Amino acid sequence: MRIVSVPLGHRSYDIKVGPGLLTTLGTECTRLGLGRRCAVISDHLVAPHYAAAVRTSLERAGIESVLVTVDAGETAKSLKTVQSCYDQLAEHRLERQSFVIALGGGVVGDLTGFVAATYLRGIPFVQLPTTLLAQVDSSVGGKVGVNLKAGKNLVGAFHQPRLVLCDLNTIKTLPERELRAGLAEVIKYGIISDAVFFARLERDLPKLLRRDPKTLGEVVARCCEIKAEVVGQDENEGGLRAVLNFGHTLGHALEAISSYGKYLHGEAISIGQVAAAELSARLLGLPWNDAVRIRDLFARSGLPVAVKLTRAQRKRIFSAMQLDKKVSGGEIKFVLAKKIGTVEFGCRVPRSMIELALDFQVPAAK
Amino acid sequence: MRIVSVPLGHRSYDIKVGPGLLTTLGTECTRLGLGRRCAVISDHLVAPHYAAAVRTSLERAGIESVLVTVDAGETAKSLKTVQSCYDQLAEHRLERQSFVIALGGGVVGDLTGFVAATYLRGIPFVQLPTTLLAQVDSSVGGKVGVNLKAGKNLVGAFHQPRLVLCDLNTIKTLPERELRAGLAEVIKYGIISDAVFFARLERDLPKLLRRDPKTLGEVVARCCEIKAEVVGQDENEGGLRAVLNFGHTLGHALEAISSYGKYLHGEAISIGQVAAAELSARLLGLPWNDAVRIRDLFARSGLPVAVKLTRAQRKRIFSAMQLDKKVSGGEIKFVLAKKIGTVEFGCRVPRSMIELALDFQVPAAK
Repeated sequence: MRIVSVPLGHRSYDIKVGPGLLTTLGTECTRLGLGRRCAVISDHLVAPHYAAAVRTSLERAGIESVLVTVDAGETAKSLKTVQSCYDQLAEHRLERQSFVIALGGGVVGDLTGFVAATYLRGIPFVQLPTTLLAQVDSSVGGKVGVNLKAGKNLVGAFHQPRLVLCDLNTIKTLPERELRAGLAEVIKYGIISDAVFFARLERDLPKLLRRDPKTLGEVVARCCEIKAEVVGQDENEGGLRAVLNFGHTLGHALEAISSYGKYLHGEAISIGQVAAAELSARLLGLPWNDAVRIRDLFARSGLPVAVKLTRAQRKRIFSAMQLDKKVSGGEIKFVLAKKIGTVEFGCRVPRSMIELALDFQVPAAK
Repeated sequence: MRIVSVPLGHRSYDIKVGPGLLTTLGTECTRLGLGRRCAVISDHLVAPHYAAAVRTSLERAGIESVLVTVDAGETAKSLKTVQSCYDQLAEHRLERQSFVIALGGGVVGDLTGFVAATYLRGIPFVQLPTTLLAQVDSSVGGKVGVNLKAGKNLVGAFHQPRLVLCDLNTIKTLPERELRAGLAEVIKYGIISDAVFFARLERDLPKLLRRDPKTLGEVVARCCEIKAEVVGQDENEGGLRAVLNFGHTLGHALEAISSYGKYLHGEAISIGQVAAAELSARLLGLPWNDAVRIRDLFARSGLPVAVKLTRAQRKRIFSAMQLDKKVSGGEIKFVLAKKIGTVEFGCRVPRSMIELALDFQVPAAK
């Protein structure tokens, strides 16, 4: 087992990475002094696999739990689902000393975190991410929230979990498409902060795709380390934390205009990162060779690297980007790369240049 | 004009109390460095009176505003209204540098504050309370939120305003019933923290009821001072802040079981405070003479001091109290008075004793 600490003063917490960690949940919660009652929030795809084991572990530690099941998929990340969770928490009389457990992927984690941040003005929560994407990204850092029709994550809060348990066994049963989508965030960490790690991913991609346990464990822990370091320096995104949004401005807009249905988050930000690399080469001097390495690694991971848009869709993309949280003073700001491993945030990009990047339709090499 | 400072480090802010302050809004927002775009959230009863003046003041300072109008009354304090506000903010492209203004009573303030706390993970907001209750209580201290069917304020956040402007002119047009409801919170400050102030209220009640401007100004400012002092010591209700909930455990339950329709908040907590005084006399040695002074002052203010409950209602009251945020480890905790001006929080009260207090049906003297 690997332990990564997120250093946030009295809100510090550990991310534990290893096989079989789900069964240690009850002991961990007791060690942290969490209450004796909790709700496990999961979705109808994940709950049948793991909810029983999770609740048994809690029960053995003397913690009473109730299971709240929501729909699977990005469309469940809505205020309607939040309302339904609140009502069930109230019905089961969860109080301030109770806590909530997120058991699932990024959608369940973001949604559950927001419920925990706002129910009774905030109660503790624990993340049990069961997808690669959630383990390396969304379960760490305390950004929680839901979508509006107008855009992704437009409603939310900062609410740090008390603990993150990344059970690597859950990756074994992950659908292929979900695994690949998770790789989009993994690759991001290489681009924004660690060229050696990026090169390792280029080399070890086949091992990751066949879910080699040792490689997976090392890679997940390294991603969490990078994220913890960034979040530790800028918890509430005053500045630096924005680098984590590399590829997300366009990615979020793509998700919004397709009503969160067509693309998984990882797929949308794969396209977004390839476009951002293209913009980086044109505006920030990223060597074209690096831009191509970036595109190729996403393509080799089986992720989409380009998108064909109608004129109407293109208009909606710009409208959606305008609503992104990274807009400031009416200007869309991008995170761009100087080289692999080094990015800058707050970069202005002329609209004509974004249009150009959207047109970058060269089919990627396999 | 009187200025009360709420001392909360980098989240400190001023409460300004005086006649005609609404027209200074634009200048104040500029002075605070707030953005150039905002939404004014108000209800359909208050907006026709003051929205135009508020927006003119903003316009003169070069701040663009959009008006969002919600229904009036406690039932508007719901997630449904929150969703509608989010959608309108997104539609008008409010971004992170934008801000929100709450123009109205406690419902508008709590609702708007919650929208501000969660839209784009939090944007600044300003309180323009137009009722006595909102000026002395709900606009100060950063507790924001909405109700669930199961109970009052069960969903929310701590999000401090950047400024509170209490324009005393708005009290002139306040309906009689709203004025009296506001007095319930005013009297509370005397009970929990200032016996001299309580005695002044006994003496000056007629002046308050006829809305004497000088008396109103002094009383509003004193209430804000007491609240600012308590909040400054315990922003997130770790302990002391609970004293502000004197009379609220039963009060909130009464509001919940009547579906937030029958009682104004001030009326419900009037009944709650009279019951708490009764419990205080029985359990904490509050002199019966003081309990009667408390009851009489509420009655002289034209507020209800007792409630006739059916057996079924009584059962629902206990169920609602069990869900109150002040419940901890399954036990309902009360704030009780040792004497007028001194209270204790976290007091355990046996259920039989609560039953007795609910039966305390002596009609109050006028």
